[in-house]
Amino acid sequence: MTNKLSTDPYKGVRDFYPEDMAVQRYMFDVWRMTAEHFGFEAYDASVLEPAELYRSKTSEEIINEQTYTFTDRGDREVTLRPEMTPTVARMVAGRRRELTFPVRWYSIPNLFRYERMQRGRLREHWQLNCDIFGVDDVSADIEILLLANEIFKNFGAENGTHYAIYVSSRKLLEVLYDTLDLDTQARTAATRLSDRKNKMGADEFKAKMQLICGGATADVLTFLNADNIDVVPEAVKESDAYTELQTLIATMKETGTPVAFDPTIIRGFDYYTGIVFEVVDLHPENNRAMMGGGRYDNLTGLFGGEPIPGIGFGFGDVTLRDFLISHELMTTDITSPQLAVLPTDTENNVAAQKLAQNFRNAGISTSVDLSPKKVGKKIANAGAQFIDYALVLGEDEIASGTYTVKDLLEGSELSGTLQELIDQLSNNG
Amino acid sequence: MTNKLSTDPYKGVRDFYPEDMAVQRYMFDVWRMTAEHFGFEAYDASVLEPAELYRSKTSEEIINEQTYTFTDRGDREVTLRPEMTPTVARMVAGRRRELTFPVRWYSIPNLFRYERMQRGRLREHWQLNCDIFGVDDVSADIEILLLANEIFKNFGAENGTHYAIYVSSRKLLEVLYDTLDLDTQARTAATRLSDRKNKMGADEFKAKMQLICGGATADVLTFLNADNIDVVPEAVKESDAYTELQTLIATMKETGTPVAFDPTIIRGFDYYTGIVFEVVDLHPENNRAMMGGGRYDNLTGLFGGEPIPGIGFGFGDVTLRDFLISHELMTTDITSPQLAVLPTDTENNVAAQKLAQNFRNAGISTSVDLSPKKVGKKIANAGAQFIDYALVLGEDEIASGTYTVKDLLEGSELSGTLQELIDQLSNNG
Repeated sequence: MTNKLSTDPYKGVRDFYPEDMAVQRYMFDVWRMTAEHFGFEAYDASVLEPAELYRSKTSEEIINEQTYTFTDRGDREVTLRPEMTPTVARMVAGRRRELTFPVRWYSIPNLFRYERMQRGRLREHWQLNCDIFGVDDVSADIEILLLANEIFKNFGAENGTHYAIYVSSRKLLEVLYDTLDLDTQARTAATRLSDRKNKMGADEFKAKMQLICGGATADVLTFLNADNIDVVPEAVKESDAYTELQTLIATMKETGTPVAFDPTIIRGFDYYTGIVFEVVDLHPENNRAMMGGGRYDNLTGLFGGEPIPGIGFGFGDVTLRDFLISHELMTTDITSPQLAVLPTDTENNVAAQKLAQNFRNAGISTSVDLSPKKVGKKIANAGAQFIDYALVLGEDEIASGTYTVKDLLEGSELSGTLQELIDQLSNNG
Repeated sequence: MTNKLSTDPYKGVRDFYPEDMAVQRYMFDVWRMTAEHFGFEAYDASVLEPAELYRSKTSEEIINEQTYTFTDRGDREVTLRPEMTPTVARMVAGRRRELTFPVRWYSIPNLFRYERMQRGRLREHWQLNCDIFGVDDVSADIEILLLANEIFKNFGAENGTHYAIYVSSRKLLEVLYDTLDLDTQARTAATRLSDRKNKMGADEFKAKMQLICGGATADVLTFLNADNIDVVPEAVKESDAYTELQTLIATMKETGTPVAFDPTIIRGFDYYTGIVFEVVDLHPENNRAMMGGGRYDNLTGLFGGEPIPGIGFGFGDVTLRDFLISHELMTTDITSPQLAVLPTDTENNVAAQKLAQNFRNAGISTSVDLSPKKVGKKIANAGAQFIDYALVLGEDEIASGTYTVKDLLEGSELSGTLQELIDQLSNNG
């Protein structure tokens, strides 16, 4: 072959072989089961979205440099979705009159980001998205945090041992700015700088904040350094935002799901308007935010009509996988048939297929090893594939209509006619 | 709002609201369950593929006019996959040394085609793909047909009543051409024309075939008009391809899954090399091929190394949905929580959330209606969402710690403490 093709996938995306799918399936199944336990309903949409969906809340630079955006033959600009929140806001806004609120929706979309190629940086990943629409009080924020916690619990992780939940409030931050009379420009700059607090030293951070906030810097730093909601500046405490955050933290504690106040949590997106939170990995070698979310009460307003309050989070598959592996919590959901029919010779393949279909018709999942391998090898392969039973089919069995089934785990054997074996295997299933 | 955004999805793709997802989930679950009953394992890949994957077996025109192909910032040509077979061949070829053959894989990918916008033509659809690799005898062809049939059976459809399966053989067609000494160009032209036989009158078809095959036309037409494998030209019968097709048809009949010979079945793709088949809808108003597939023994050869024989099929979600609806076989897989907690006032929302979490912790899936609606409306909504039980939470219940749960289907009521209700609901679950 001169022009042979590469078997590599496109740069930055993954192939999912069956063993990789078993991992994805386990993770997605726990996600789905937990979301549905809270009454969330599944939705989905195409990976293709009109590019304009991302322009309104994102800079042109991000659209052009960090997303897959191209022009179709009808001169429409199309983007491979980089996040799901604009899509779900679009869908909710599109049926605002028909939907029964509160709407609780979840989805596990694949998302694309155009990353300059660095080792291990992926251009596609999957992400659980859970959102509640139509509730503007803190009870929805509590639910979203309970759900986030329950997901970790259902993966076998423990709050305080494997992970911790940190919350803050964009609304509270605005209250602080109000008390300090900061203008819009200073607010935006201070918020963006706070989002990067952990990426620089304390002195550098203070110096930069000084340039933005001037005389208000000390109060801003007091707020940002508070490790407890009780020690924020007194003026900030006289606000609904403070009462709300207090209720949230107290209620979470009462439900046995502690969350801690961390005023440096910002979450990058501009659209957050209230509670913001992150779940942090407590593994010493991987101490970082794994997932997060918050309240975005104005996002559906982009589509016209009254804004519909929303709160939600996203949780990526790669982050989750790394977390589960590093804490030795990973398991997989391997599916394998109950029975393997193993012809002694390819001459018996058609007879094996007919016999197998009789087992399948009786509700026993069955595969046939149609390869020319020796029977010993076929039995070993069936075991390696976690198949429960093997039936070797040779001339004698075909002639007599009596078969022997080997239990690959126990090593025991059963013999009988097709119907006798079906009865036995159905009872053991 | 002056520049308000449209809530429409991108042209030619669909949004899946929860009721649409319930339909997809039902269809996908039956697909998965049936494939796994035959021992097929799930795999997946990214929707992005290098464009060159499609160039080798497809004309430039199709790549440029009928697929989404664009150039990324690294000057790589990328295509949104229009079909899954090249991807699965790539993945199998990439791990040919590690994989245990026979490989049985299935996937439910979304596929993209750039269609000029016509009413109802979709640019994205989902498709079940099932393939067996590594078996070059007819027993694999039999299995693929049994699997195709079982999928329809598991949707409640009956072979011969709702659908029929038709088979032919590209290999047998080559045998016919051999006996008639047709050159490569004539073979290709005759095969392409045969693929369009049902799109023109018999006279037009005959005239066109005459231009291609000259003196061999009568024999070609005899073959193409055969409605039974016994009436093909005698010379064709002396071939392995004939024996193979005979075995296939006879075995399928023995398993109670009749398939009929139809020599006009070609299946468009050039890569088919053996058995080809279609499943046809027998609904009088929708009498058309719903799905199909065949054997492609040389496809992995594109990637170098010895070719690995393959056989498989694809089955689209839109086609399946239309079939199920037209035969009144559609059902949906709606998920809803067991219990709805309904606070009488939003003042009780946080208390409702705490109570709900106690039920969730006990394994009872629970949602909370956090809206400001009246309780009567909340009960009606819970019923409409197929929730089993409703618990109305007012001041009295919060004060007393005694609650009443209404069975929304039966109309009966249960009263008790949290623990008493958990015990009761767990028993009824």
